Amino acid sequence: MAARLGLELVPCESKVFPDGESKVTIDAEVSEKSVYVIQSTYPPIDQHLFQLVLIAHHLSQEGAKVTAVVPYLAYARQDKEFLPGEVVSLGVVSHMLRSAGVRRVVTVDIHSAEGLALFSFPIFSVSAIPELVNYVKTKLKPKSPAVIAPDFGASKRTEAFATLYGTGYLQLKKSRDRSTGSVKIEKPTLDVEGKNVLIVDDMISTGGTVEASTKTVLSQGAASVTAICVHPLLVGDAAARLEKAGVKQIVGTNTVAGKYGTVDVSETIASHLRTLEE
Amino acid sequence: MAARLGLELVPCESKVFPDGESKVTIDAEVSEKSVYVIQSTYPPIDQHLFQLVLIAHHLSQEGAKVTAVVPYLAYARQDKEFLPGEVVSLGVVSHMLRSAGVRRVVTVDIHSAEGLALFSFPIFSVSAIPELVNYVKTKLKPKSPAVIAPDFGASKRTEAFATLYGTGYLQLKKSRDRSTGSVKIEKPTLDVEGKNVLIVDDMISTGGTVEASTKTVLSQGAASVTAICVHPLLVGDAAARLEKAGVKQIVGTNTVAGKYGTVDVSETIASHLRTLEE
Repeated sequence: MAARLGLELVPCESKVFPDGESKVTIDAEVSEKSVYVIQSTYPPIDQHLFQLVLIAHHLSQEGAKVTAVVPYLAYARQDKEFLPGEVVSLGVVSHMLRSAGVRRVVTVDIHSAEGLALFSFPIFSVSAIPELVNYVKTKLKPKSPAVIAPDFGASKRTEAFATLYGTGYLQLKKSRDRSTGSVKIEKPTLDVEGKNVLIVDDMISTGGTVEASTKTVLSQGAASVTAICVHPLLVGDAAARLEKAGVKQIVGTNTVAGKYGTVDVSETIASHLRTLEE
Repeated sequence: MAARLGLELVPCESKVFPDGESKVTIDAEVSEKSVYVIQSTYPPIDQHLFQLVLIAHHLSQEGAKVTAVVPYLAYARQDKEFLPGEVVSLGVVSHMLRSAGVRRVVTVDIHSAEGLALFSFPIFSVSAIPELVNYVKTKLKPKSPAVIAPDFGASKRTEAFATLYGTGYLQLKKSRDRSTGSVKIEKPTLDVEGKNVLIVDDMISTGGTVEASTKTVLSQGAASVTAICVHPLLVGDAAARLEKAGVKQIVGTNTVAGKYGTVDVSETIASHLRTLEE
């Protein structure tokens, strides 16, 4: 990223002790400088989040103007009080980053627009959907594709994907039990017969939603299913379960480290940072 | 603790999702109330720490006056810049708690007095040493005891232990490589021949210090070694390694959950909270 932007790379060492404490060392002169801290908050989530706080706090104490670049922003799904007394964790994250001296945040495909409103300081969410479309178009080239949104929350992003792809999309209807977390997909009558289905969502965590959607479209005669997401968290055995459910391939971006982050979003982020510099 | 203090217990639910995100629910009317949040920050450290931030932030937003009771305070060893550019993490923790609306902190045997100075708001460190002395005196009753401080950092606490116990103490000399973290105990000539040695420290994390000290005193003819600490973190296989090194028993307090937290410190904390109420 430093090379892309033509900026100096500040050496920053993060060490994790056996008990799980992080120690950060930044030996650089940053006073009055504009510094981009690039720290994604995929699992271990709270560890990555607190490392970001340590880094940002230290840099801002040293007089730097800190922009936090958080490709995957954790807690973005906890963006409202769904049940009485639920803590709106994203609001707490926002406040915590602000208190640590972060002046603005750049993230990739934040889960919801409501989440942006919880930030009392500038936050920018750039989209990796064009990069994902480009990857599917140039590498996968599926015949007879059908783009599917697994639920209402995904539909905006899926619509963007389908529009850029030059096709329509279909939306499944999901219900989630807020107490148990279990997912149910209502059986739709979809025109997926013989189609190579692209299920598009912002993230795959445990994969429950994509798993249920895959079973639904395969039972309706789909030829294949490819799961496409921005943030491939794929917690625990999620990838294996998706494979077992019939998913042919999982495509994600490198906002999350791991083997499914095949699509590089660094240029997407860099081009946005260039506009901030202007 | 609520029963000890005669206070209402506020229902607080913490749930951890498969990806490691915490969700906290507190459905109670706390406006204008003085609320004690009891949350120890043993491993998973950052998870417990961020849950504390979530709880404190929410309560203070709802108008409560929040006291954080943190029996084991993580990051307390990172209390100064040991090497150039090292982030003083405890200072960041202090600032983070303050920003989350915490008005004062009560902890048990903070690692160092220097750590207290990193808090710009009231912090109280109560000592569990009297409870530990009481336990050893009434339950273990060792014959010919010798109290040992494994290093200089432990000596203040060991001195307190020895004074309350009514005996003297000996101090080993430890050196730690700040880069590699490895521990070396200089071979002393100690009068531990035939003695039942009590090694006293504030915490046992990986157990490296106690392990090295145990080997030293056993090689000098000690009859047995008991490892006594306030915070029995005992990360990974620490307990097994200490046993292998010849430690007969590990005694700790319940500031850290687990089988070695045999000594209860809730009355020690409660009696301090009663003085705050007055």
